[in-house]
Amino acid sequence: MFDNSEKTDIKELGEFGLIAHLTQSVQLTQASSIKGIGDDAAVLNFEGKKTLISTDLLLENVHFDLRYVPLKHLGYKAVQVNLSDIYAMNGTASQITFSIGMSSKFPLEAVEEIYEGALLACNKYNIDLIGGDTSASHQGLVLSVTSIGYADEADITYRSGAKEGDLLCVSGDLGGAYVGLQLLEREKQIFLENPKIQPDLEGKDYIIERQLKPDARGDVVELLRQLDIKPNAMIDVSDGLASEILHIAKASNVGCTIYEDKIPLDPMTYDTAREFGLDPTICALSGGEDYELLFTIPQSDYDKVKNQLDITVIGHMTEGSAGCQMISKSGKVHPLQAQGWNAFK
Amino acid sequence: MFDNSEKTDIKELGEFGLIAHLTQSVQLTQASSIKGIGDDAAVLNFEGKKTLISTDLLLENVHFDLRYVPLKHLGYKAVQVNLSDIYAMNGTASQITFSIGMSSKFPLEAVEEIYEGALLACNKYNIDLIGGDTSASHQGLVLSVTSIGYADEADITYRSGAKEGDLLCVSGDLGGAYVGLQLLEREKQIFLENPKIQPDLEGKDYIIERQLKPDARGDVVELLRQLDIKPNAMIDVSDGLASEILHIAKASNVGCTIYEDKIPLDPMTYDTAREFGLDPTICALSGGEDYELLFTIPQSDYDKVKNQLDITVIGHMTEGSAGCQMISKSGKVHPLQAQGWNAFK
Repeated sequence: MFDNSEKTDIKELGEFGLIAHLTQSVQLTQASSIKGIGDDAAVLNFEGKKTLISTDLLLENVHFDLRYVPLKHLGYKAVQVNLSDIYAMNGTASQITFSIGMSSKFPLEAVEEIYEGALLACNKYNIDLIGGDTSASHQGLVLSVTSIGYADEADITYRSGAKEGDLLCVSGDLGGAYVGLQLLEREKQIFLENPKIQPDLEGKDYIIERQLKPDARGDVVELLRQLDIKPNAMIDVSDGLASEILHIAKASNVGCTIYEDKIPLDPMTYDTAREFGLDPTICALSGGEDYELLFTIPQSDYDKVKNQLDITVIGHMTEGSAGCQMISKSGKVHPLQAQGWNAFK
Repeated sequence: MFDNSEKTDIKELGEFGLIAHLTQSVQLTQASSIKGIGDDAAVLNFEGKKTLISTDLLLENVHFDLRYVPLKHLGYKAVQVNLSDIYAMNGTASQITFSIGMSSKFPLEAVEEIYEGALLACNKYNIDLIGGDTSASHQGLVLSVTSIGYADEADITYRSGAKEGDLLCVSGDLGGAYVGLQLLEREKQIFLENPKIQPDLEGKDYIIERQLKPDARGDVVELLRQLDIKPNAMIDVSDGLASEILHIAKASNVGCTIYEDKIPLDPMTYDTAREFGLDPTICALSGGEDYELLFTIPQSDYDKVKNQLDITVIGHMTEGSAGCQMISKSGKVHPLQAQGWNAFK
């Protein structure tokens, strides 16, 4: 993805030099950031709030393929994916640590691109970069991100809070990231067979962006606050809708019924899935990587969400022994199964 | 390092199964841990205290060599190394996240050993494991640890607080981890040339343990509290004494003079370094991985430390323009240089 000619050698800089170079433009903007990069640990001040922590490990050829993922997008996505976990707790994300392991043959400019993407994601939500680690890797590229946030104890939404009778809601639309990935994989194969053919992704921007440059839904957390809604349970959609519903149901000891015709799909997701011979509903249920928020609210909050274009009620929670199922468009009952991503297969 | 016969296949478990299996015995003991593993993010409560965060990335064949590092030791060291950063802020370590990326061919028992080592390190200092990530790696083994702690704002020791006239102190002894590494490297070479020869490490337990199973000096932080000492500046010795002194001097805008004959060396470190034709002082200055604490205190605190066997005064801080130097045993002045480890070389 990058041209190695006239590039700066990381070996010349060494670890301290590299860190100094990459972090020279990093500024702290959060009131809770007392000390960021430059000491043994960062120092944060959450006063009366609770601290939220989440972490992700992203490995080359497992979580991303550098043959079609631009480095800047990679840095951006690595941060967004992690922030998504803080939002899924109904918290305010405030800081991240960002660690990179890469080949010493990686030129400085390539690392800069990853970092630029990470900082762009930070700037978007006013997140401070407060630390990290850089290392040589003798194998592929490795990214590790930890995100930190805060919330009032009463505002925190666990997976375990869903109640029988709750409405199940999801933000945005689903399946796009997975269908976008199919498109990128197809173009990669064509490129590998004939490098002269340029990728044909015209008009597919939306689903390509869903895959390469997802945005964590901090805006939805904010919207819920404005609507004066505190979800009973919340999770982000990383492994696919079915897997996340099962997580909430299990943790809350409730069942769930969703309706296929309610699942929000973008027309481009629908049409492109069809082009690939895929069932668009399966893409939403099992595709994953949408990073939308899935949450349950009391029925009494229905009026607050019914006219919100960015929130869709897709079903409701039932008693625990009823299990989790989807009512198909033709009225058939399908048990929900977690076919979430298994990186070990 | 492990026998693959009759082992459990991770592919069978999948990611959720693996996490559930590995974390089934994890218990929370810290009052500040409200919610650990099992939701989108962990929830912590530091009340009036400041939150401390540090993170490390450890990569196979860069930071460790599985040909001589037992997996349990690896897990243990990965945690200790990270806790060391919290102690270097004069804080109390309270939680970690622990992420592993490994080949799907890695048997479950191998991952369990790493995890066991990590939990052993946690138990030693009453640390809660509150989250992490597991992933397949198509390359080598990857570990990422984030440690979290807390401190009263007035207690936090930054690198930047050293003052002219301060005494420079170090805990324990130095150079052992580096000399232990030389020993392990030599035995590895002998083994690679003739696998029938068993490693000859007899009587070298201390320096082998310094390398394979270091303990972060939480006990020294506790000791300083008991002695009613608040260091003006503190850092942990990960890259070597010289490199750490230069960090403090630069951040504090002071100079430093240390005395070669004051640098604490264990006799085994000294003798084994000599066996290898190495200068023991250089091993202490540039070897690294000792994870001792290096700190400056006002001269008025001298009486409090002078009879402490675990604390050695090795020099004092001077005005900034004087630079950093070591007075050798023969009275010569040597400028200190950071020859710290450069993973990119």
